[in-house]
Amino acid sequence: MHSRRSFLQKIGWATASVPFVNLGMNQFSAKPLSGEKPLRVALMGLGGYAGRVAEAIQNCKRVKITGLISGTPEKLQRWGAKYNVPEESRYNYENFDAIGSNANIDAVYVITPNALHHNHTIRAAKAGKHVICEKPMAVSVKEGEEMVASCQKANVQLLVGYRMHFEPHTLEVIKMRHEGEFGKITFFQGLCGFRIGDPTQWRLNKDLAGGGALMDIGIYAINGCRYMVGEEPAWVTAQETKTDPVKFKKGVDETIMFQFGFESGVTASCLSTYNMNNLDRFFLNGEKGFAEMRPSTGYGPIKGKTHKGEINAPVVVHQTVQMDEMAAILLDGKKPLVPVDGLEGLQDLKIIEAIYKAAATGKKIALK
Amino acid sequence: MHSRRSFLQKIGWATASVPFVNLGMNQFSAKPLSGEKPLRVALMGLGGYAGRVAEAIQNCKRVKITGLISGTPEKLQRWGAKYNVPEESRYNYENFDAIGSNANIDAVYVITPNALHHNHTIRAAKAGKHVICEKPMAVSVKEGEEMVASCQKANVQLLVGYRMHFEPHTLEVIKMRHEGEFGKITFFQGLCGFRIGDPTQWRLNKDLAGGGALMDIGIYAINGCRYMVGEEPAWVTAQETKTDPVKFKKGVDETIMFQFGFESGVTASCLSTYNMNNLDRFFLNGEKGFAEMRPSTGYGPIKGKTHKGEINAPVVVHQTVQMDEMAAILLDGKKPLVPVDGLEGLQDLKIIEAIYKAAATGKKIALK
Repeated sequence: MHSRRSFLQKIGWATASVPFVNLGMNQFSAKPLSGEKPLRVALMGLGGYAGRVAEAIQNCKRVKITGLISGTPEKLQRWGAKYNVPEESRYNYENFDAIGSNANIDAVYVITPNALHHNHTIRAAKAGKHVICEKPMAVSVKEGEEMVASCQKANVQLLVGYRMHFEPHTLEVIKMRHEGEFGKITFFQGLCGFRIGDPTQWRLNKDLAGGGALMDIGIYAINGCRYMVGEEPAWVTAQETKTDPVKFKKGVDETIMFQFGFESGVTASCLSTYNMNNLDRFFLNGEKGFAEMRPSTGYGPIKGKTHKGEINAPVVVHQTVQMDEMAAILLDGKKPLVPVDGLEGLQDLKIIEAIYKAAATGKKIALK
Repeated sequence: MHSRRSFLQKIGWATASVPFVNLGMNQFSAKPLSGEKPLRVALMGLGGYAGRVAEAIQNCKRVKITGLISGTPEKLQRWGAKYNVPEESRYNYENFDAIGSNANIDAVYVITPNALHHNHTIRAAKAGKHVICEKPMAVSVKEGEEMVASCQKANVQLLVGYRMHFEPHTLEVIKMRHEGEFGKITFFQGLCGFRIGDPTQWRLNKDLAGGGALMDIGIYAINGCRYMVGEEPAWVTAQETKTDPVKFKKGVDETIMFQFGFESGVTASCLSTYNMNNLDRFFLNGEKGFAEMRPSTGYGPIKGKTHKGEINAPVVVHQTVQMDEMAAILLDGKKPLVPVDGLEGLQDLKIIEAIYKAAATGKKIALK
């Protein structure tokens, strides 16, 4: 059992130095603490999400953007000017292996399409840089295992971009579970989805995304189930439906319902979809109480309540906190409450593969 | 499309004569409207739920308790005195077939254990009385079909005790769906369960209950799915788990997750359990909005909200409204918005059998 204070200290909110915003308004200056080495990061893949990460890093206390990797010269030029990244630290996908000789870069944040994570992560590791890889960490278990092995061999760390593992409302629920406030957990539900737009985007291209909604948004229900329940599922069943086979081609899942069973008797029921209005709901039920989060994983303020009332926790920019915490992990060896390493990413991939197999065969797939 | 007023008139709330209570306080007197014939009902099976029904009938405007059937002489005596039912209208299970010659009884409300509904309904029908049968209407499709056939043959009506079909918040959501306020429906979720107490009760005896939680509380998610979505499911999958095989013996289900697919593309995900804290949650999602109800089917005040805000509807005693509406159906031929006839009950039985089959075989079971 943790005291609340020691828990908050452990996860880093008890200090006044955690940057947070309240309803979008930044309340802290972004100066690095004196004496702390900043994490110098190269961003790879300058799309929409990288833009969000880059902006969030501006409010980090110990993260700096010191490198950029893109296939688009115009983006390298524009982002380089905006974030003060000198020309010699801008790379494309042909020449970025040379990043190894760049002493101003500690880590590469891989934010490219899913199917490219494997190649990009292994190359960054071979160049001797730590890797932060967006989720899903790869498009298959085999790829994920190779990435973990490559990073181990290169003696660099591999982290996966699980921003929710640092989100205060989420951590408060996990803390309450640790402290037994819900009693024995009985049931989890995660409904994750949205209606995806532009049919030409890489997320709807099997070759680049490795799948459909499950890879992109369903993974939040999978990972959320694991951190909310605090136990690994023992089996999974799944049912796939598709209403628009033109937009969602073969191998690109539109909607999948999936269910987990756990050795302890917990059950879980989840939904992954690219074809419904914003669905962003977690529900955790226990013998003594419950928690519900809505929104549960979106970028905006997370809101939650339990049988005890509203969850009061700081509203943060997820990516700002994530990057500062990842700096502490990579530079100080800090252990996060919920892991964000390659093995954590690999477990989600194992479950994703099992869900696809369960949906395709109609069978219950063992996970252990 | 209905106007709100015509809809309310159709379902009977636009008149000031609907009895309702606000937070338990009865706001109407219980006098029958002049000129309207009351429905004279014999209650069969004087257990806890019959007690609730009997009390609710005291506030009905056109229902009277005029008969009692029980195997316990002391109960017949006590209830007879309490509700002014004369000795000649009190029956036991051996002699109640003689009810046919009792001119003061129009209908029998069968509130006995599930496995007895078949016998009791058919005997009441043969005696020439209308039957209101608690849900589940029987423990198998075959039994249900025989009950429907017997009532048709005897030229009496068979209604099933679907009290939610008359509940104002529920009807408001159905009305909104009719009027297109949610757009195309995409997803339904029903979580229905509670932690059952006394292990010796008939609900945990397969021979009397015909099953476990699914028969008793899971049926609310099944039936709720049908009236909320407004479409019959095309297939079902199901997963059964059991944490306490002593309390929940063979054939008595503790927890079942089940999922429906619909021809329109709607999916639904439900939970039935006898082993979790009160779970009483419906969620209906559409392309343009959503509704959630919590509690969704409990006896207490139903609460709901939609994308437009809280649902404002009268708080009623479900069984009072149900019985008055059933009087109108049986005596005036009124058509309820959502059917409560034998075929409605039979459809739930078909789905229950399919869920048990899906859980036992692990296969997707077609429902059409």
